[in-house]
Amino acid sequence: MTLLNEHAPSAVHIGTDDLPWADIGDGNKLKVIQTKEREGLWIVENIFQNGYEVPTHKHTGPVWGYTRSGAWKYKEYDYVNRAGSFLYEPAGSVHTLMCIEDDTLVWFHMYGANLNLDADGNVESVIDGATTLAAYYALCDAQGLPRPRVLTD
Amino acid sequence: MTLLNEHAPSAVHIGTDDLPWADIGDGNKLKVIQTKEREGLWIVENIFQNGYEVPTHKHTGPVWGYTRSGAWKYKEYDYVNRAGSFLYEPAGSVHTLMCIEDDTLVWFHMYGANLNLDADGNVESVIDGATTLAAYYALCDAQGLPRPRVLTD
Amino acid sequence: MTLLNEHAPSAVHIGTDDLPWADIGDGNKLKVIQTKEREGLWIVENIFQNGYEVPTHKHTGPVWGYTRSGAWKYKEYDYVNRAGSFLYEPAGSVHTLMCIEDDTLVWFHMYGANLNLDADGNVESVIDGATTLAAYYALCDAQGLPRPRVLTD
Amino acid sequence: MTLLNEHAPSAVHIGTDDLPWADIGDGNKLKVIQTKEREGLWIVENIFQNGYEVPTHKHTGPVWGYTRSGAWKYKEYDYVNRAGSFLYEPAGSVHTLMCIEDDTLVWFHMYGANLNLDADGNVESVIDGATTLAAYYALCDAQGLPRPRVLTD
Repeated sequence: MTLLNEHAPSAVHIGTDDLPWADIGDGNKLKVIQTKEREGLWIVENIFQNGYEVPTHKHTGPVWGYTRSGAWKYKEYDYVNRAGSFLYEPAGSVHTLMCIEDDTLVWFHMYGANLNLDADGNVESVIDGATTLAAYYALCDAQGLPRPRVLTD
Repeated sequence: MTLLNEHAPSAVHIGTDDLPWADIGDGNKLKVIQTKEREGLWIVENIFQNGYEVPTHKHTGPVWGYTRSGAWKYKEYDYVNRAGSFLYEPAGSVHTLMCIEDDTLVWFHMYGANLNLDADGNVESVIDGATTLAAYYALCDAQGLPRPRVLTD
Repeated sequence: MTLLNEHAPSAVHIGTDDLPWADIGDGNKLKVIQTKEREGLWIVENIFQNGYEVPTHKHTGPVWGYTRSGAWKYKEYDYVNRAGSFLYEPAGSVHTLMCIEDDTLVWFHMYGANLNLDADGNVESVIDGATTLAAYYALCDAQGLPRPRVLTD
Repeated sequence: MTLLNEHAPSAVHIGTDDLPWADIGDGNKLKVIQTKEREGLWIVENIFQNGYEVPTHKHTGPVWGYTRSGAWKYKEYDYVNRAGSFLYEPAGSVHTLMCIEDDTLVWFHMYGANLNLDADGNVESVIDGATTLAAYYALCDAQGLPRPRVLTD
């Protein structure tokens, strides 16, 4: 019995220059690499500058962060993500991102939604793969960039 | 090279009478079978009576429904789930459950959260595995049932 | 901010008579309901007759079994799956299925592959969603059944 | 209704120097960062040297590769993974890794098993999170390194 099969799915490569960076303000940048809307999967890459913050949010699925350069942390914890750091954020975890060095480069591999919370824990807004992909396309359009070839299904 | 390994994880069986039904009102019932909080997984079984409704909600992860008896539907669709029906609800799907026959028995195999929405699409409340497990324990306590041995990790 | 979105994915229903049963010998039957080949997901329904066996196999992903009728067990454990039983088979678990009552009806919700093992733990063959879907199509063709509309992506 | 909850799971950070590199021969190195055996999840980091090869294998679950430095490719494809490359390997994909620059640093985020295949497509051996974790521990022991605090559950 052979497991070799001409119809097997192929691996898909996206090189570091294959997708444009969309500016999200003050030199912070976003790239959406892959979404599987029906799975709730979204994989993005960010460049953050010192002082950038992401509001307090709760994840409804697990998330992993792979940091390539710079430094960032969650206000709720002491540790700092630097080049080579691995971060596992279980479903249900809540935190507030703060970038503390310029040109911080991070891949986020995410399932589910970010529920952005106010100080009392109420949901103020919701971000997920579908809304982030739409925002990325709109930003690229507005910034005169070609429509990026994000990996979607 | 053998793949047999005395430390391999075991399969876990939960029989139909191993966990109590908690009454959630009007003869509708809930059983939480398994949660993996860090994965966002929650598997429940429900008994619904004719007329029971679940508010309009959006799923942040994929969900599957396996129906054993009775009849229920989503108001947004014409099809009816009956004994033997399979339902796939992708992440991002939105719908409003309505039970249309007594003693409707359904397993829901769910990832992520239910974002309960008002008529304008704002999040009114959020239900997930952790909150549902806590509710199940509290209902069992209040109803004089022993603490159920839900499969958690 | 509204979460209602006209482009949201829809829930998909497959009723108990929407897909044909393929005979796999001796009155045992198979229905493949959903595969997501790239995720490794495959969901099948089986009818097993008393005495049916599945060779010893190891799962490379997690599996859940939902039993609607009849009785079956794994030779490695004492418990018996009956109507209403829930079974969780973690990735890495190894077992040998044996049906002990006629007309046993089970949904299997599976990730990954079944590595079929010989007595020494060597891999004899591999079954997964793609091979099972191909077998289901071939059986339906051979048995004069119309090509089933399995949920695939 | 607040979603803030003192019992929420915490994010877990593993810094670039928190786990030792185990030598796997010829200056190639392995670090196992996280395994969830029951989910089939395993996340590793490798340092490969020019000329290193991984035998042809088929994945039973999806895999993602995040490359930090160096250059590597699959023999079956022309593209080259370099610093900043993203690679998506669907379940079912088959390929043969070849490193083409020294000090190539890659995170692999994997579900399921690697089925190592001979030229005819037969399974020669199987590698998964559990076997790789055991190998990592054994290599660390043999190389006089302290038992690494891999993230497991």
